[in-house]
Amino acid sequence: GYGRFGLGYTSADVNPMGGAASTWVEQRLRLNIVASTTSDMGVEFGAKMRMQYDDSNTMVAGNRAQFFVSYEGFYAQVGNITTALDEDTAGLFYATEIGLTDTGFGDSRSDFFAYESKAGNGNKVGVYGKYTISGVTLEASFINPDHYDLNGVVAGSVANDKTETSFVASYEGGPITVAAGATWNGAGIDGNDVWYLGGKYAFNDAFSAGLTYINEGESALVDLGSTTSIYGTYTVGAMGVTAYVAQIDNYDTAAPKSDTSFGIGASYDLGGGVKLLGAVHRDYDEETFAEAGVKFAF
Amino acid sequence: GYGRFGLGYTSADVNPMGGAASTWVEQRLRLNIVASTTSDMGVEFGAKMRMQYDDSNTMVAGNRAQFFVSYEGFYAQVGNITTALDEDTAGLFYATEIGLTDTGFGDSRSDFFAYESKAGNGNKVGVYGKYTISGVTLEASFINPDHYDLNGVVAGSVANDKTETSFVASYEGGPITVAAGATWNGAGIDGNDVWYLGGKYAFNDAFSAGLTYINEGESALVDLGSTTSIYGTYTVGAMGVTAYVAQIDNYDTAAPKSDTSFGIGASYDLGGGVKLLGAVHRDYDEETFAEAGVKFAF
Amino acid sequence: GYGRFGLGYTSADVNPMGGAASTWVEQRLRLNIVASTTSDMGVEFGAKMRMQYDDSNTMVAGNRAQFFVSYEGFYAQVGNITTALDEDTAGLFYATEIGLTDTGFGDSRSDFFAYESKAGNGNKVGVYGKYTISGVTLEASFINPDHYDLNGVVAGSVANDKTETSFVASYEGGPITVAAGATWNGAGIDGNDVWYLGGKYAFNDAFSAGLTYINEGESALVDLGSTTSIYGTYTVGAMGVTAYVAQIDNYDTAAPKSDTSFGIGASYDLGGGVKLLGAVHRDYDEETFAEAGVKFAF
Repeated sequence: GYGRFGLGYTSADVNPMGGAASTWVEQRLRLNIVASTTSDMGVEFGAKMRMQYDDSNTMVAGNRAQFFVSYEGFYAQVGNITTALDEDTAGLFYATEIGLTDTGFGDSRSDFFAYESKAGNGNKVGVYGKYTISGVTLEASFINPDHYDLNGVVAGSVANDKTETSFVASYEGGPITVAAGATWNGAGIDGNDVWYLGGKYAFNDAFSAGLTYINEGESALVDLGSTTSIYGTYTVGAMGVTAYVAQIDNYDTAAPKSDTSFGIGASYDLGGGVKLLGAVHRDYDEETFAEAGVKFAF
Repeated sequence: GYGRFGLGYTSADVNPMGGAASTWVEQRLRLNIVASTTSDMGVEFGAKMRMQYDDSNTMVAGNRAQFFVSYEGFYAQVGNITTALDEDTAGLFYATEIGLTDTGFGDSRSDFFAYESKAGNGNKVGVYGKYTISGVTLEASFINPDHYDLNGVVAGSVANDKTETSFVASYEGGPITVAAGATWNGAGIDGNDVWYLGGKYAFNDAFSAGLTYINEGESALVDLGSTTSIYGTYTVGAMGVTAYVAQIDNYDTAAPKSDTSFGIGASYDLGGGVKLLGAVHRDYDEETFAEAGVKFAF
Repeated sequence: GYGRFGLGYTSADVNPMGGAASTWVEQRLRLNIVASTTSDMGVEFGAKMRMQYDDSNTMVAGNRAQFFVSYEGFYAQVGNITTALDEDTAGLFYATEIGLTDTGFGDSRSDFFAYESKAGNGNKVGVYGKYTISGVTLEASFINPDHYDLNGVVAGSVANDKTETSFVASYEGGPITVAAGATWNGAGIDGNDVWYLGGKYAFNDAFSAGLTYINEGESALVDLGSTTSIYGTYTVGAMGVTAYVAQIDNYDTAAPKSDTSFGIGASYDLGGGVKLLGAVHRDYDEETFAEAGVKFAF
């Protein structure tokens, strides 16, 4: 897991915790408890529970369990799974995420399922599979949000109970990284289909740049249009700088102040898994979001 | 601890999670957090907290603490204890439990206390002791469900507040395993007394068989009669097959469809603590319950 | 962390768990989950989560996260911090605490913030710093109970939202230990200021004695006066005996039966981090509180 803490700032009236403070101490502690064993034939069986504290939380509970099986190039999960989209093996779906809190306004604005770090709907069960060979990775995931057929039986059941299906194919070789992925019935919402294409090229050891196009879904029967982002990273020694611009188009929702958001972030590696991280963004409402701090892996 | 996952099936209208699905993904992740130290005289002092996820749970909390002391043949627990009956040192009280989820319809149908893997009544405190010498094990447990005398003071107090007392004596030597046990005021219910006798004989390295008789208690002022079960296990290499038949008699409750239940299960050891497990049962309502999956210890 | 269990007794009508039982099993299990890493320059970055079970609790959750940084004589915390007063580096602020549960009636009766072992107000964020050089330790802490400015926005916000500020200076050298500390706006209560002075002298290897004076604050607009305590410890081999007398003065609250409380406790070290501990106290209401048990660190 990891810990991170630092300072955050927003020009908006309400901060991410729902309060009025424009500056705050940013905090997260993520503990992954992973236990596994390997059978005589070399198949690894394991399970993971996460305990995560985020700023303004009052306490920490373990999340819903994830089980995994790994054998050579094959890897699968059962239970509280990651999804093919959310796993983002190639790093192109969340390519604009920078800074202490991995924030990027080029992220998809659609609803879709992801691994849940906190308490969640126990009626939601998924299966995820990944196969890697010669730089090509194929991923598929299926999540049924009403697996035990509890709807109408217990309170708190989801209204959107379609099975979400996702596929992603990606390739990493030499300077080239490409990925294509799609989700049907994202977050269990009937007809909420999302797909994306992304590519990145490393011009040399120091500079790489890429482009990601996301065709957003329909979260509440309204088409969210598309999100296109370009991004580039320049690395020199322990220092790295990443900048991005993201543009939204063809959406049927109310228009924000701007169709464009952008951000720039820097990281400095202190060694031992410790990094200094900072970033400044301008979002679609033309508000400024900034943060700086330290993140340490353990 | 251990993890297990697989598939479950029931012919009944409602599955074990309370939903209508007849097939489902079975899941459990059990993490035992045990810490201990040993004094200069060689007495071990320790404590255990369990965090357990079961299918359809929304999150995981740590359970009530258990403290233990161990010295040569003597072992004791304080707090959230196991009970003499539930510990089942000889494996004869729960002898019909088979398959991925250790299900057996020859289990006692009475109410009695057990170690609690999840959140529980904090007002319930027990003491358990075990002494082993030359194959003979003597166990005793006492649980007061209103230890702090909170009844009438706080909400959530138990109505059945008698101290549950249990004794079990068992012997394992050569091919023979026998056990006898009794509980008075099971689950704190006045007059809810349970006792059992069991014996098992290993005819050779491959085949063993046994019989258990349980005189059930009175959980709600109604006599639950008795439960008699016979069971046998055949082992060949990494494979084991267990079958049982259980019969209920002399009960004062409404009669189920049948007085007989039975089941057959198989296990295959993959090494490294990993086992494939499957079982099929027919319960007293003549419904079929089946399951298959993998269980891995760590 | 540590575990402890034993027996408690009170002559009062209500025990510490709020029940009527005059004797009870005392239990605590404290698990500290600490993860840290060290940068190339030798700065340690870490985080701590605590899971603590106390008698009569129904379950255990992780507490709010604490982050720390350590470099040579400097040490700092962010988040769910200890405070300069509560840390009690010199051991003089809580000098009368004895026995299995570290109880001492010479403790301050004022309200002030402390590290929270259980779930707490997520809107409360602090910073703590400590610097040690040549036996002198300087500590400062600041806690804002409404850090995200959530008051009026979410339920459960605190009414007392002043920033608590604390400073403590202490010195340990040869036989002498001295400390002075103060807190302004203790527990976020406007004008609730507390300060203390303490000193201890080791007459020889076996005997030490000391005195602590606490000028209490105003928790509910009522002056709590002062608390003065004297205490002495006699150690011989693995055995230690501590006794104290505490006196309260100049308070504006309703008078208890007595202005004086006292207690005596003994400890016996069994090695391996295991201690037998017992104590008897008479509090200001002239009630007797006694306890004995075992405490083991791991």
